[in-house]
Amino acid sequence: MRRYKCIVEYDGTSFVGWQRQTNGYSVQEAIEKSLESITQEKIRIHGSGRTDTGVHAKGQVIHFDSNTNLDEYTITNALNHYLKKELISILSTEMVDNNFDARRSAILRTYEYLIINRAAPLTIDKNKAWHISKPLNEKLISAAIKIFEGNHDFTTFRAASCEASSPIRTIEYTELVNHNEEILITFQSKSFLQHQVRSMIGALKLIGEEKWSIRDLQSALDSKDRSRCAALAPACGLYLLKVSF
Amino acid sequence: MRRYKCIVEYDGTSFVGWQRQTNGYSVQEAIEKSLESITQEKIRIHGSGRTDTGVHAKGQVIHFDSNTNLDEYTITNALNHYLKKELISILSTEMVDNNFDARRSAILRTYEYLIINRAAPLTIDKNKAWHISKPLNEKLISAAIKIFEGNHDFTTFRAASCEASSPIRTIEYTELVNHNEEILITFQSKSFLQHQVRSMIGALKLIGEEKWSIRDLQSALDSKDRSRCAALAPACGLYLLKVSF
Repeated sequence: MRRYKCIVEYDGTSFVGWQRQTNGYSVQEAIEKSLESITQEKIRIHGSGRTDTGVHAKGQVIHFDSNTNLDEYTITNALNHYLKKELISILSTEMVDNNFDARRSAILRTYEYLIINRAAPLTIDKNKAWHISKPLNEKLISAAIKIFEGNHDFTTFRAASCEASSPIRTIEYTELVNHNEEILITFQSKSFLQHQVRSMIGALKLIGEEKWSIRDLQSALDSKDRSRCAALAPACGLYLLKVSF
Repeated sequence: MRRYKCIVEYDGTSFVGWQRQTNGYSVQEAIEKSLESITQEKIRIHGSGRTDTGVHAKGQVIHFDSNTNLDEYTITNALNHYLKKELISILSTEMVDNNFDARRSAILRTYEYLIINRAAPLTIDKNKAWHISKPLNEKLISAAIKIFEGNHDFTTFRAASCEASSPIRTIEYTELVNHNEEILITFQSKSFLQHQVRSMIGALKLIGEEKWSIRDLQSALDSKDRSRCAALAPACGLYLLKVSF
């Protein structure tokens, strides 16, 4: 039995998300079906993060075990062949130690969130960014994201359905890059709570609109009260960029 | 009668190109139909460049005449309302002098061509770039594009069906920016011949693959012989970025 690690890119628009669901086609199901076609084995894959419906990935990481003798290069190409009708692409495959676990071995996850801030509707970037038509003050957002850095209780910013045992997380790094109408916000943490990034972005939008002050944001965080959260930012602007081990 | 200028963005994937055709839906037809709905006039629009099927635009410019009393802001919003099911977006509208002509008044057109050079298939960027799976030598391409700069007879690099009276064009500026797997090539000229950018990119691919030397490219240009052209690069990597007046 060998363990394989793959780096996976996908456009989440037409999937019900990463995880297998009964109500639609998931990225996990698409890859597992392809692996079964290649190896004739029933293989369960494990991902680094469970992205929601519509969330994209440029660097999702998976692991799986197989009795196949196929080399890494052949697995990559065979998977891409079987996945060619899906917007899922295997960027690389490598054999790893049996202790490697795509979820548990991860030491840092990087998510990016793309806002396009302009009056005109999106065309080329439709479903790839959050279109916000009213002008945002990106300097205020830039200052506000620093509130999230460090170790905090993120109860306000996690889904009611979040299954994590603790609401405490440490955000190692945040960044805002503003280029013309694009506002790209990066978050890095060992792990994130369910809907945490989209909840934080929802609040940052209120800051950018000057509906919330930075003090309001601090107070929402300190309250540890989910009802104090802003509306969730849409999934289509979110990208799982990279997982580090 | 007032003359209006609009800047238009579109995702060319599902259109038969800029110009009205009998065999499918064009960007021109979509905008003209919307203008008719708004003004109850039959309005003919004129674009700065006739992009092919699948070519995108971030800054196509159009002009049209109308008896409407609608202001610029209202025209933008009304057009975007009628176009909301299409991947066409009006970025801005302004009233212009009656001498303004989107095609004839243009002094510089900027086209970008995006290549994604990696083994893995595209997902998020599908239909938005030319996927070239074998590694390209982008330093050779970078050197080779300089051959196109200046005033040349581009007979080799224009479509057989090109209707321009002269094959002579002056390329004012070329640039290659390489970032990770992306190779973005920019060309600026007062005007381009039909299929000129895609023909030049097709040749640059052969340079990058080291199938053509820079001398081969120079010889193809000097030959003024369309049969010496490389295969046309696909439409999906091409963007009409900007038109200057």
